[in-house]
Amino acid sequence: MTSAQDKSQADGPLVLSIDAMGGDRGPAAIVAGLALFARKHRDVRILLHGPEADLRPMVDRHRGLAAQCDIRNATGVVSMQDKPSHVMRNGQDTSMWSTLDSVRNGEATVAVSCGNTGALMLLSMVRLRKLPGVNRPAIAVLWPSRNPQGFNVMLDVGADIRADAEDLLKYAMMGASYARNALALTRPRVGLLNVGTEEHKGRAELKAAHEMITAHAEAGGFEFVGFCEGGDIPGSRCDVIVTDGFTGNIALKTGEGTASLIGALLREAFAYSPLSRLASLLALTSLKRLQARIDPRRKNGGVFLGLNGTVVKSHGAADATGVAAAVELAYDLALTGFGDRLAARIASAASSVEAAAEPQDPQSRKDGTNS
Amino acid sequence: MTSAQDKSQADGPLVLSIDAMGGDRGPAAIVAGLALFARKHRDVRILLHGPEADLRPMVDRHRGLAAQCDIRNATGVVSMQDKPSHVMRNGQDTSMWSTLDSVRNGEATVAVSCGNTGALMLLSMVRLRKLPGVNRPAIAVLWPSRNPQGFNVMLDVGADIRADAEDLLKYAMMGASYARNALALTRPRVGLLNVGTEEHKGRAELKAAHEMITAHAEAGGFEFVGFCEGGDIPGSRCDVIVTDGFTGNIALKTGEGTASLIGALLREAFAYSPLSRLASLLALTSLKRLQARIDPRRKNGGVFLGLNGTVVKSHGAADATGVAAAVELAYDLALTGFGDRLAARIASAASSVEAAAEPQDPQSRKDGTNS
Repeated sequence: MTSAQDKSQADGPLVLSIDAMGGDRGPAAIVAGLALFARKHRDVRILLHGPEADLRPMVDRHRGLAAQCDIRNATGVVSMQDKPSHVMRNGQDTSMWSTLDSVRNGEATVAVSCGNTGALMLLSMVRLRKLPGVNRPAIAVLWPSRNPQGFNVMLDVGADIRADAEDLLKYAMMGASYARNALALTRPRVGLLNVGTEEHKGRAELKAAHEMITAHAEAGGFEFVGFCEGGDIPGSRCDVIVTDGFTGNIALKTGEGTASLIGALLREAFAYSPLSRLASLLALTSLKRLQARIDPRRKNGGVFLGLNGTVVKSHGAADATGVAAAVELAYDLALTGFGDRLAARIASAASSVEAAAEPQDPQSRKDGTNS
Repeated sequence: MTSAQDKSQADGPLVLSIDAMGGDRGPAAIVAGLALFARKHRDVRILLHGPEADLRPMVDRHRGLAAQCDIRNATGVVSMQDKPSHVMRNGQDTSMWSTLDSVRNGEATVAVSCGNTGALMLLSMVRLRKLPGVNRPAIAVLWPSRNPQGFNVMLDVGADIRADAEDLLKYAMMGASYARNALALTRPRVGLLNVGTEEHKGRAELKAAHEMITAHAEAGGFEFVGFCEGGDIPGSRCDVIVTDGFTGNIALKTGEGTASLIGALLREAFAYSPLSRLASLLALTSLKRLQARIDPRRKNGGVFLGLNGTVVKSHGAADATGVAAAVELAYDLALTGFGDRLAARIASAASSVEAAAEPQDPQSRKDGTNS
């Protein structure tokens, strides 16, 4: 199949499309992150979307950046408060819209934005369209884990609050594909998140998904370990954790909140007495090593899976280091041809799934490109 | 209203009913934990349930314990593998059954067990019955948090994988009651777990629950802060987090898994080099202070809420320290008359709720004591 990715990759250097607006720290932080990335990858072309009058001086401040970077003027900005449906109807002039359209029209391989997640997902669905065979796209994140690769993939962390058995099967395939490309695992182990590992446990759609994923693991190129529990998300039992976007979003934020509480308590513990302050000075290297290992900025970026084109959603509060990590992730995915590989995997699997599955709602299943 | 608690409290010393069996470390660890507790509370009577021939020498090993402790011979043991329905039909001779029946017949105020959670919950529902007005009992835990009291209450963490709007309202009331008694908060702030804090977000039952909880916060003696997110579970925005047992169980295990991963990485970081090992020696006090703060053994025990009688579920893997903490929690709840207070609160609220609410399934709602 021919996709936007093929076109851009065939035409010359790798091109990334970056939304300069929508981050909590403003465009200067995003441009600074971009400059950090660009310094390491002088052969990559960047399309930067936002108000040119504001962006031009920011880009010029970073040596060499202007030479690899085209600014695409877009004066509208999607704010965190904007309702996704409003952006979809009235956002044609926004930097987010323009960023996605560069991928849509084949100019760039991957889009990156720090903006409003709901608006970015809806716009991505409308402008890039869903892959044939995918009913609900998902957001995947990399989660620090006990596995040798240091991270597990979890999806969906909030693209949609619902997921039926067939969606969960697609998440398993997309997550496995992402793990192969982002974590270099040849045969990822996939687990389906539940409240126990016994097969009789959990909600009806989970039991149905368990059967479907078992049947398609071979075709999907992954190993299915069955049900897993919350403790396995940072664990070593599987590499990919599949769940609906409601549960995944709450698990993600619970994990972040717990890590952040422990960090705060650790600082408190070390500030307690003169002796503990001295100890903390000596322990600084060790603590920094720990921090680097679980620093969410190191692997910043949720990836939207299931679209014609790859979109990386950076954390809204990301600083320059975080933005650079998100752009680096986008670069890695563009380099491995991830978008095409995923599309091919879903396409080849979709036929077998559609033959075998019994869709609960045949109308909405017939053409995955319509929502 | 008259309840089992009233009877036992009126008759003399406080009596706790303890299941000696079902813990991962065997009855010796449970008896050792009991001895730790008993040493601090010489006036409390203990009913210890299990095979007398095994338990007698264990009890005799701890000075003074035999004098406060009656052994109730029960030769059957509920294992972690036993299906709850099997235990319900065939478990009359088990220590778990005997432990609950001491609360049922008014001999003891609170029951404690380390055993199989599913079996303990089902047996508790069958032997103690649900409180009038409660359709689904819940399991509540204390979660380390940024609040001054050091812990938040979260429920349900796994009694039932479903919860409708009315169940969530009852969880809010029961959780607030638990926070008043276990955390000494006069007017707990209750949050309803969702994927965003905006009122239009989330599943239909959450929007309905939002309305119902808003309407009954005054009667329930709590402040309703509206929707909260996963990050608020260890946070300071609310004291009580209400969710269904599927989401709550996954959040709980994700939080535990994250904390445990960070602990492992911290040990790794400090074992890295001779200098870091030296630093860790100096930092030992600080690290122990941190560990004490988040040690799950310190607040070990999920509490079953919504039954005629209080049941504390200790972690299956609890050691003597963990068991002692669970028994201490049971003691605190018995001392404050928590069971009666909760029952009275639910009874007074139930009438107003039933008048105002529109049950989705009137048949199953008419009598909350039937499942």
